[in-house]
Formats: sequence, C-alpha cells, structure tokens
Amino acid sequence: MNIPSKILENAVDQIASLPGIGKKTALRLSLSLLKRSNSEVSDFVHAIDELKKSIQLCDTCYNLSDEKKCKVCSNSSRDHGLVCVVEDIRDVMAIESTSQFKGVYHVLGGIISPLDGIGPNDLRITELLSRVNNAPKIKELILALSTTMEGDTTAFYLYRKLQDQEIEISTIARGVSIGDELEYIDEITLGRSILQRTPYQNTLHKQS
Amino acid sequence: MNIPSKILENAVDQIASLPGIGKKTALRLSLSLLKRSNSEVSDFVHAIDELKKSIQLCDTCYNLSDEKKCKVCSNSSRDHGLVCVVEDIRDVMAIESTSQFKGVYHVLGGIISPLDGIGPNDLRITELLSRVNNAPKIKELILALSTTMEGDTTAFYLYRKLQDQEIEISTIARGVSIGDELEYIDEITLGRSILQRTPYQNTLHKQS
Repeated sequence: MNIPSKILENAVDQIASLPGIGKKTALRLSLSLLKRSNSEVSDFVHAIDELKKSIQLCDTCYNLSDEKKCKVCSNSSRDHGLVCVVEDIRDVMAIESTSQFKGVYHVLGGIISPLDGIGPNDLRITELLSRVNNAPKIKELILALSTTMEGDTTAFYLYRKLQDQEIEISTIARGVSIGDELEYIDEITLGRSILQRTPYQNTLHKQS
Repeated sequence: MNIPSKILENAVDQIASLPGIGKKTALRLSLSLLKRSNSEVSDFVHAIDELKKSIQLCDTCYNLSDEKKCKVCSNSSRDHGLVCVVEDIRDVMAIESTSQFKGVYHVLGGIISPLDGIGPNDLRITELLSRVNNAPKIKELILALSTTMEGDTTAFYLYRKLQDQEIEISTIARGVSIGDELEYIDEITLGRSILQRTPYQNTLHKQS
C-alpha cells in the first residue's frame, strides 16, 4: 500500500498489529478515527490508556477488576466454597451471563500447552492450591476447561495435584448441545453423552 | 455481555464504535492489548494520538500529508498541469499504487449524495475551481469517481461548472475488467464497453 504519510502509516501499523485486523481494515479504521472530532479521538485514546494503567486483577480469583477484589469475590451472597476454575476471563463472562452459577471463580490465565511453551508454572496453579488450603474453606472445585487436548491435560494435572485434598472435584457436563439434532453430532460427543447419561428427573430441576 | 470492569467496558465500547467492529471483537482486541507490555500499549496509544494531532491536509490537493504540501504536490517531476479528481485519499493511494499516473490530485472529500445530506458545498469544489483559475495552469482534469449514481452526479456537476473553461475534462475508462470472462459481465458494463470501444493499437502502448 502506498500510504502518503508516515504518521498515518504508523497508526495503520499499530492497528494492524491487533489480532485479526489486516492492513486494509487498519487503514479504514485509521481514516474513520481521523474523521472524528478531537475530543472523540482523545476519549478513544484515553479509554485504551486507562485500560492498561488502571485495570487490576482481583487478588483472589485473578478476574479483571476495577478494584482489589472483583465484583464476584466481594459479593457475600455468593457461595465462596464453590470455585469454578476457568482458562481466562472471557470464560468468566460467558458463565456469568448464564446466571446459573452462584459460586466464585479462579482464572488460570491459560491452559497447559507444551506446543505453545506453556507449562503448569506459567499458570496460576500455585495460587489455586494455596487458595484450597486457606480459609474460606473450599468444598468443591468445578473444572470448566475447554474440551481440547490442552484442556483435558490441564484438568488431569489439577486433578492429580488435588486428589489427596478433602475436596470434591467435578467438571462441567459434556454432551449434546441444546438444539442439536442427533444425526449431525460427532461420534465422540454422542458416545460420551450415552456413557455419561444422567437420570431424567435430574434434568427437570436445574440447580447450580 | 457481562463485562466485569467499568474500565474494560469503556475500552470495549470505544473500540466497538469503530466501523465494522462488534462488541465481541472489541473485547478480544481489548484483552489482546491488555496482554501487551506497558511500552507496547503506550506506542499504540501514541500512534493514534499523533494521527489526529499531527497529520495535515496538503494545502493544494487535500491529500493527507505530514507537511504543508504532500509528497505528490511537492514532487517537481510530476505533471502539475494534469489533475486527477478523486473522492477520498484511499483513491489516491489506489491510483498511486498502479504507478500509471504522473500528474497530481485533487481530493474532493466525498461525493454529492443527497440521501446522505452531502451537497456540492460540503465538498472541496470551490477549491478545485480556484485551482483551475490560478497558476500553475491546469490543462486536463481527469474525473476518477465511482461508477455509481452519486459518482456520476458529481462528475456531471463538475463538468457543468468547468465546461466554459479552457480545460480538457476526461473520465477514467469504463469497461470490462482485465481477467473477466464476457459471459459473466453485467449488461450495462458490456453495453458501454462496446459503445466506447477504443482503437486496438491504443491498447498496445498505455501511457498516462
């Protein structure tokens, strides 16, 4: 591309460094920013600047937060004995939007992935173990990790680390998605959903 | 979406205000910015801040520029008597990347579009007319506007304004794209390309 200005080129390069944004899109976005008023652009810049400068990680669950404790951890009406272990904060947001979970979270900050050079020490596993040993007493850990090789590895690693503790360890249910037609479902999911069938009356009253 | 932090929500809203970026993408981009180092984020913020603060419009052709005159207008080896009229700076970049044009530009900053409330007074048409009347003498104007109703309206408006001047007015060639197969081309384009056929020998030596 033949960008006529170094300043514009610099902005395009920076925007194109974001994941999934190519040079042409970056140019389109830069030009749309240029068309805005000064105050609009400074609001934009300020919001991103603040994002990095002021946001914190909750010191208990490592969810993103504006304060030292996130909204979930500082909410006394939630069950602090029930901890859902997730890969990152997008999973927290996804689970929160179901309104089905009344416990608290622990954000690992990734999953074990040897191909990407991520081992157990890169995740917040030590922090999870110390949380299990300290008050408030945790009764149950729900492993809500992706159903991938990496997710299963991480879940198994956590299980091995925690199996001697007096704590219940569960994983979220794997099975056929609601709305799916059986004939189109892959064999592994369908096979598992038969092996791990649940009593019908349990499906009538869903509780977290 | 259940965003756990006001600061993050603010950044997501700002990024989602860009054209073609939805909330989910904005969240993904915000989180990817959060994962960067402080200096990387400040480079990012600085580039966008500079974009609005330091970029200028060339005072002759209204192309984007780092200085008072853009690279094209300050280049004495280009033909300043041949002016290509375009809608916006992306068109300049597109034409420049063909390396087929040795003249200079005039960026209108839009096209006449009554439906969007854009009339001739919102464009840099007065500036174009005063350019035509002043030195350096312009011999030919090439109207390189989109082949849409709005583009054709703008071209006709400019033609009416300029027809009494001693100046040649041309438009870029309309016809069948290179690489297209005739059977798939729309009737209007194909019809026009027959009416406005060019002598075969002219296609052998292309010159701007």
